[in-house]
Amino acid sequence: MARRDYEDDPNAPEANSLVPAASVVVVDEIGRVLLHRRTDNGMWALPGGKMELGESLAGCGIRETREETGIEIEISGIVGTYTDPGHVFAYDDGEVRQEFSICLLGRAIGGSLRTSDESFEVAWFKPDEMDALPMVAGIRKRLHDWRSSRIPVVR
Amino acid sequence: MARRDYEDDPNAPEANSLVPAASVVVVDEIGRVLLHRRTDNGMWALPGGKMELGESLAGCGIRETREETGIEIEISGIVGTYTDPGHVFAYDDGEVRQEFSICLLGRAIGGSLRTSDESFEVAWFKPDEMDALPMVAGIRKRLHDWRSSRIPVVR
Repeated sequence: MARRDYEDDPNAPEANSLVPAASVVVVDEIGRVLLHRRTDNGMWALPGGKMELGESLAGCGIRETREETGIEIEISGIVGTYTDPGHVFAYDDGEVRQEFSICLLGRAIGGSLRTSDESFEVAWFKPDEMDALPMVAGIRKRLHDWRSSRIPVVR
Repeated sequence: MARRDYEDDPNAPEANSLVPAASVVVVDEIGRVLLHRRTDNGMWALPGGKMELGESLAGCGIRETREETGIEIEISGIVGTYTDPGHVFAYDDGEVRQEFSICLLGRAIGGSLRTSDESFEVAWFKPDEMDALPMVAGIRKRLHDWRSSRIPVVR
């Protein structure tokens, strides 16, 4: 399903949905970060997605990372909360979801890179390689927070 | 509306709802913690509640604390995430909500204690006074995490 992101845009449609989701900054043993290029908007992003009934937020981050990238992780902390009412996602079916993502910190413990229906490409990047990648502002903000702060950022 | 909490109870009804909420450990300048006694279950609890469209998670914690206790706060960090699928709340109207609370850390910056429709009593407690208060296990766990850990706990 196509999705359009709006950030601080006066023409953004009004949100009608609030859905808890997790995203994860996954780091490997040499400090690289796991990103995937989303099929729905073509941008590089952190693994993550909507939390399902019957799982925890950490369980959601672990499952979404496995589904989108093939990598097995364990959760080691929190990067921050991303719940800006000025950031909404409009979907084809009329849903306008207000951002609600808790960005977790994860450590890769197994698996191997693979793409899926949700990802054109999956790869590890050194932190300074990420600046040149096309990504939405909300994802760039989380990576910036992760690189610049040792304590969680509440937004 | 009456609510019943189930924690790791084989007789708990199946969850049918997932609603993002914030709770807040609010601390004053002498290290006391702000609690209120809920009208819906009679237990002592942290201020907090469901997040509304158009506000951030931090904004939700600030608003709920004001509404339930009369105290103005600023958000200073995260205690942890509390999203255990084994913890559900059953409401009178058939909603069975799976726990989804992000517990924030707050600093009191103004206001004065008052009760509301949601609170029989509102008071500041020294940490060692809280052990004797009746409260549900989920709230006691957050206070324990706050007292014992300097880094956020992802549950």
